[in-house]
Amino acid sequence: MGYKIITISRQFGSGGRTVGKELAQRLGIKCYDSEIIDKTAQETNLAPDYIKEQGEYAVSSSWFGMLCGRDYNGHSFQDDVWNAQRKIILELAEKEPCVIVGRCADYILRDRDDCLKVFIHADMESRAKRIVEIYGEREEAPEKRLKEKDKRRSAYYHFYTDSDWGDMMNYDIALNSGKIGIEKCVDIISSVY
Amino acid sequence: MGYKIITISRQFGSGGRTVGKELAQRLGIKCYDSEIIDKTAQETNLAPDYIKEQGEYAVSSSWFGMLCGRDYNGHSFQDDVWNAQRKIILELAEKEPCVIVGRCADYILRDRDDCLKVFIHADMESRAKRIVEIYGEREEAPEKRLKEKDKRRSAYYHFYTDSDWGDMMNYDIALNSGKIGIEKCVDIISSVY
Repeated sequence: MGYKIITISRQFGSGGRTVGKELAQRLGIKCYDSEIIDKTAQETNLAPDYIKEQGEYAVSSSWFGMLCGRDYNGHSFQDDVWNAQRKIILELAEKEPCVIVGRCADYILRDRDDCLKVFIHADMESRAKRIVEIYGEREEAPEKRLKEKDKRRSAYYHFYTDSDWGDMMNYDIALNSGKIGIEKCVDIISSVY
Repeated sequence: MGYKIITISRQFGSGGRTVGKELAQRLGIKCYDSEIIDKTAQETNLAPDYIKEQGEYAVSSSWFGMLCGRDYNGHSFQDDVWNAQRKIILELAEKEPCVIVGRCADYILRDRDDCLKVFIHADMESRAKRIVEIYGEREEAPEKRLKEKDKRRSAYYHFYTDSDWGDMMNYDIALNSGKIGIEKCVDIISSVY
């Protein structure tokens, strides 16, 4: 249908990453997820674990927390990670058709008409079940951890994009995987691509 | 897939109403849109034109405006319209499989697992083009009118549901008709139903 890139933004525990992987497999194109972390680590000389955390989650969900750890120019390691990730995502999109999961790729590629922007979300109950059963997270209070993850991801997105994470107007397709299922999400997105 | 009802919430000018009509036709079920206005008019003895305006749009987009025109019990004609519409929507959903366009049906039927909740939106440019070319609205400043409609619809929804209109977490499928097209929206929703 004239799209080259699909970005998948997702709530933690919604299965958005699985949607991205299965979608790419079905379409016969690459899916970039943790590969972006490795590439960013090479680019910045920072540890992959640090990138994983700092490249999508705010240190804190408050603005005050986001402003801490900056030098007198207002610059932080988190900015280095953002800039490196941004460069890598722009290069990937230029190079080949692909699926890119997370990392604000929807915002970074917002000016490309050939980019289909998808958001995967789910109700709290489905997400809590998923992170315990599939991600192997501990069973105590998963809802609390999900809320904290949402807050931090949202604060990160807002800080770097000046836009609201999860505002449906920023996406072409938003799907509730808890209601319609992972497979159906893949069916829908591939039918549009 | 086990759904009986589809609710279509939509931004003015997004073509959501057309999606609803075409969807119902394709699925061989009824689409309720202006029919709800007529039924509400019968129920309340108020004029259809009044229902059309008051049954989805706030008198004003401010809370102050929403609180005007109430008697000493805090009651207004708008509440009568809301209550009548709510009753009609609950009865329709009970009666037969159908598509219901607008009128906060997504909220009114939120507890039904067999209700698929859809939101249709589009970028300002596509909507402006649509209301001038298809709805025959005047060509001057369509964006301004769209913004005012959004504000009033949002205020109405918030007042009666205490929830945010257009918050994607309230919907199972949200689609940008300006990007993916009306026909594709119909394809997607019918494939899930």
